[in-house]
Amino acid sequence: MILRHSPAAARMADIAPFHVMELMARAQALEAAGRDIVHMEVGEPDFPTPEPVCEAARAFIATGRVRYTHALGLPALREAVAAFYELRHGLRVDPRRIVVTAGASGALLLALALLVGRDDEWLLPDPGYPCNRHFVRLLEGRPVPLPVTAETGFQPTGDQVLAAWGERTRALMVASPANPTGTMLDRERLADLWRAVRARGGILVADEIYQGLTYGATAATALALSDDVFVINSFSKYFNMTGWRLGWLVAPEGCVRDVEKLAQNLFISPSAPAQHGALAAFQPTTLALLEERREEFRRRRDVLLPGLRNLGFRVPAEPEGAFYVYADIADLAADSFEFAGRLIESAGVAATPGLDFGINAPGRHMRFAYTVGTERLAEGLERIGRLLRA
Amino acid sequence: MILRHSPAAARMADIAPFHVMELMARAQALEAAGRDIVHMEVGEPDFPTPEPVCEAARAFIATGRVRYTHALGLPALREAVAAFYELRHGLRVDPRRIVVTAGASGALLLALALLVGRDDEWLLPDPGYPCNRHFVRLLEGRPVPLPVTAETGFQPTGDQVLAAWGERTRALMVASPANPTGTMLDRERLADLWRAVRARGGILVADEIYQGLTYGATAATALALSDDVFVINSFSKYFNMTGWRLGWLVAPEGCVRDVEKLAQNLFISPSAPAQHGALAAFQPTTLALLEERREEFRRRRDVLLPGLRNLGFRVPAEPEGAFYVYADIADLAADSFEFAGRLIESAGVAATPGLDFGINAPGRHMRFAYTVGTERLAEGLERIGRLLRA
Repeated sequence: MILRHSPAAARMADIAPFHVMELMARAQALEAAGRDIVHMEVGEPDFPTPEPVCEAARAFIATGRVRYTHALGLPALREAVAAFYELRHGLRVDPRRIVVTAGASGALLLALALLVGRDDEWLLPDPGYPCNRHFVRLLEGRPVPLPVTAETGFQPTGDQVLAAWGERTRALMVASPANPTGTMLDRERLADLWRAVRARGGILVADEIYQGLTYGATAATALALSDDVFVINSFSKYFNMTGWRLGWLVAPEGCVRDVEKLAQNLFISPSAPAQHGALAAFQPTTLALLEERREEFRRRRDVLLPGLRNLGFRVPAEPEGAFYVYADIADLAADSFEFAGRLIESAGVAATPGLDFGINAPGRHMRFAYTVGTERLAEGLERIGRLLRA
Repeated sequence: MILRHSPAAARMADIAPFHVMELMARAQALEAAGRDIVHMEVGEPDFPTPEPVCEAARAFIATGRVRYTHALGLPALREAVAAFYELRHGLRVDPRRIVVTAGASGALLLALALLVGRDDEWLLPDPGYPCNRHFVRLLEGRPVPLPVTAETGFQPTGDQVLAAWGERTRALMVASPANPTGTMLDRERLADLWRAVRARGGILVADEIYQGLTYGATAATALALSDDVFVINSFSKYFNMTGWRLGWLVAPEGCVRDVEKLAQNLFISPSAPAQHGALAAFQPTTLALLEERREEFRRRRDVLLPGLRNLGFRVPAEPEGAFYVYADIADLAADSFEFAGRLIESAGVAATPGLDFGINAPGRHMRFAYTVGTERLAEGLERIGRLLRA
């Protein structure tokens, strides 16, 4: 028997697939058929998890005592994250405000489960990380795209937020460094946004999962603004721990008890092996390795960015962080979705069309990730060049 | 500065803490002060994760390639789960219907995110697993407690479901074996419930996370009823993998694409080390070990259940699965919350008051878990006896 009617709730009509995953599947199918594909679609560092992290996790697993932990995470790990804020930002954050989560995804769910009321409107920069709007919708809120352009570095401004704020608006989310653009908010721009949000009595949630991966100025953290902002972070990107599913949330002190109730009910606890591994993520030897890898990402950006520009892609806002270049293809093709299809099928290059990142001119943008080495990037550029000349 | 108003969404007023976790924290505090505590509160097997699982995870981690997996889980693991249904239930389940998740919690979130529309009512047996009603509320649905009593083995009946079904009712959740009662639904009773749900055009979600841990008849799976039911399962309990955070969902074929969209957006993927470990969970040597442990659980039940009855606790519905005894304390104390406090403070025995499991006579019930060895259970019984005689 087959269900006569789809049992799906109304929200499902608004939940889009994560298209880059479809593209990855297509790339894998082509590879299985013997084709060589240059991967510029993957939002995942290609480096292995640092050895000290693997070793710590393996030693923990060898005990066999892989049990639930405290719902908010291992106390020692919460303290280690706090110490990292002091080391990198000179900032004291109370470890009790740090909640260890199942990836940044888990942190987003906890923060938004706490904050999104039904029909509340949330301002989300567009282009932006596609899952954010789906989390808001999941919780019966209304994601409202805030179109951002190259003129403001693909980041919103305080004036724009004030102008967009409506009667039902409740919060602004920002990301710095941002996906898909790699652009950042410096301390002054963050403060400008916070002033605007505060003037409206709203909430600011800052996605800082790409912090650490910056190639100019160090990224400012929204935690420096106030103890009242919500910050999402992750072990996936800078720490090269994607598959472990570990992240963290920094919440205002007065909200931690509510976050704990949610964490107990929705997750019980984050992965114990991942947490024990992550205890080794802040060791000086690990951090030294991660800094070498950051330099490698910088070298890759410095191959890919001029390479794309030479081919006729426009990249008007300099990407300063993460591992993405968000390129305007208007001079080269009419539609990025169609172009992405030609790229993978004819040129063997996988890159993500703008479609995944919102409704703000997705057809004229592509995201290229530099999560492969410089030789592969050069090969990819070469292939794109041949396709464009054909 | 402190937030002037709590930013919490309205739903937070309905999200209760998981009280057993508070109790565990109190037990730990007493232990830190030198007290010996007999733990009968913990819903977590005390056995270490089976060695083959640990070994497989460690070998995987040693490669360093701990990357995102497919959002629905490793294909080999989905096939292994399908083969397990064939082995244990003689049932063919298409591996494409099996979705590997971040614990049963992740499976619950995916199923309910798909199915719970705003203001939809969901019938949930009371007493029952407390998080279920919070998941429904999270998604802006309305959990409706369906009171169940010892007369029907603390499980609902088809007639009861038909009588309780209202205009906005959309689904029934059941659990077999159930937490906190350890009672089960045999195939006929499951079929009776499915007929009732189908007669109303509703949805059936079956929580089967304690399957494998049964001490009489093997538990029936709701998957045998129809390809249209939703089944939640877990590696935590039978497989002794709590801290790994791994479970699975079996969904109707026509819903898998929607579940995949949700999984991509809400989780990206389940833990890679946990999945690679779990590949070894179905090996004959692992299963043989788990069967020995099941026998040990049976021995424990056969100490605890008569022991409690001898002390004057009433247990009218025989617990046949999981690792809980849900005891009526009416002959011994006026209120289970107060009694639980006296038990831990005066007798050094931690057990969970009914409060966690709903609003159906929680004050006259306690849950005792047999997740410690028989000697400790005997010691706990001895201490409870002394307290009752004092």
